Amino acid sequence: MINRLCIIGVGLIGGSLALALKKAGICREVIGAGRNRERLERALSLGVIDRAETDYARAVQQADMVFVAVPLGAMKEVFEQIAPALHPHTIITDAGSAKMCVIDDAQKAFGIKINQFVPGHPIAGTEQSGVEAAFDSLFQRRRVILTPLESNSADDVKKVRAMWQAAGAEVDEMGARHHDLVLAGTSHLPHILAFSLVDCLNRLDDVDEIFKFAAGGFRDFTRIASSDPTMWRDICLHNRDAVLAMMQRFQNEVDEVRLAVEAEDGKQLYDIFARAKKARDDFSM
Amino acid sequence: MINRLCIIGVGLIGGSLALALKKAGICREVIGAGRNRERLERALSLGVIDRAETDYARAVQQADMVFVAVPLGAMKEVFEQIAPALHPHTIITDAGSAKMCVIDDAQKAFGIKINQFVPGHPIAGTEQSGVEAAFDSLFQRRRVILTPLESNSADDVKKVRAMWQAAGAEVDEMGARHHDLVLAGTSHLPHILAFSLVDCLNRLDDVDEIFKFAAGGFRDFTRIASSDPTMWRDICLHNRDAVLAMMQRFQNEVDEVRLAVEAEDGKQLYDIFARAKKARDDFSM
Repeated sequence: MINRLCIIGVGLIGGSLALALKKAGICREVIGAGRNRERLERALSLGVIDRAETDYARAVQQADMVFVAVPLGAMKEVFEQIAPALHPHTIITDAGSAKMCVIDDAQKAFGIKINQFVPGHPIAGTEQSGVEAAFDSLFQRRRVILTPLESNSADDVKKVRAMWQAAGAEVDEMGARHHDLVLAGTSHLPHILAFSLVDCLNRLDDVDEIFKFAAGGFRDFTRIASSDPTMWRDICLHNRDAVLAMMQRFQNEVDEVRLAVEAEDGKQLYDIFARAKKARDDFSM
Repeated sequence: MINRLCIIGVGLIGGSLALALKKAGICREVIGAGRNRERLERALSLGVIDRAETDYARAVQQADMVFVAVPLGAMKEVFEQIAPALHPHTIITDAGSAKMCVIDDAQKAFGIKINQFVPGHPIAGTEQSGVEAAFDSLFQRRRVILTPLESNSADDVKKVRAMWQAAGAEVDEMGARHHDLVLAGTSHLPHILAFSLVDCLNRLDDVDEIFKFAAGGFRDFTRIASSDPTMWRDICLHNRDAVLAMMQRFQNEVDEVRLAVEAEDGKQLYDIFARAKKARDDFSM
């Protein structure tokens, strides 16, 4: 049971966790914290949070669990402001889509209290954002990756794991650097490609017609280009090395395809496409 | 009313048109033609076609309408084989995803009969293929683009248009070269990117784990990588110039993103992502 849960950043992710834990009946009180009073009022009126705070240090007082679900670029400031107010029994975890940068920010802000911070990443979300988009089943059968620190106590990690399981998620653990590479490939690179494709087509002269004749495949392919630009700017900046490494791998692959098209090398094109189809079909099963 | 419809290539597209026109009650008899006797038997037993032929010249005899729905690489041979057997009243149309190359093949094969060929492209399909995947509502509210030739009679174009409308589609007309560029952007390039991404990730060492942690966005983004490799090889080869032009535009865009990530230029990243989000959101409405 979580007596007092403090959620900093009450958007799609933070709001959905609050709703899921309330529904599971394992959370007595939810304090929502954020800079924007209006958004907090909406979260209050939607019943997502029980109390609103714009002062992070006040928000975390007496909390068992603090969940920080702000864009990666805002983590540092949040950590710095809550650090002095943290009680020794408070566990902090987060929803950051990259983990090395968040751990770095946390170490600098928390100092010797770093053992209270259990880094995490719920692999869930939609292309929507904001508390209005939150719903209590967002994490059902979704994966959450924890990248615990050496200094974390086993008990604290267990509590964070139990919280996510109560929200319906499957919890895995891995190293932070490995997490960042895996996510760069399966999430960050695809988003960059979708944004790039839509912006590229949008620059063409007859853009209205272009989109008019786009079919279902295009709709699915570009859905993630409706995602929050601030969040994705921050991911690119804060998971820079892994993102650049994956962009380079992708570039090598596209170069192979382009050379095969230029050379009219049907066998090479067939081989690449057939390998990809097999991998995608296997993955779907 | 179509007295005798001949469908050459009874797969997802050809089979679905047969089913749609039968359901609409505007087609008396459907002759299915293909090289593979076994697949034709399946089409017969599924009730998609009424008679099967492996000889294309025999198949088109007495047909009012011939619909050629084979991969782009197989069009030329089909046209060459049916050309001598075509009655003057027979209309030929096709489902090719690129139009310049099909028109070129048709001109060479049909000679003075080229006026009987009305080029078309139904923008429909799923990542499935084969007659088992065919269904009668595939073209409902989907678009079909006709790229008529100067030599086509208005009456023949009208009949092809009416056939697609009976199948539930909205029919547009445009020039073949323009069609090929528009489709290269909204369909051919996205497929190349999806195939490339999946193959690129599939080459990584810990590929099982990579796919394990892929979320819903990745699933949508890569769905089209399950498409038929033969069809997409042919599209790359037969719409080569437009595909290469679109790949170059995309390359320029990705280069901008990569430079911005390298330079940690958050404003530039935000601007690109926000423009893309707006375009994608507008397109969805």
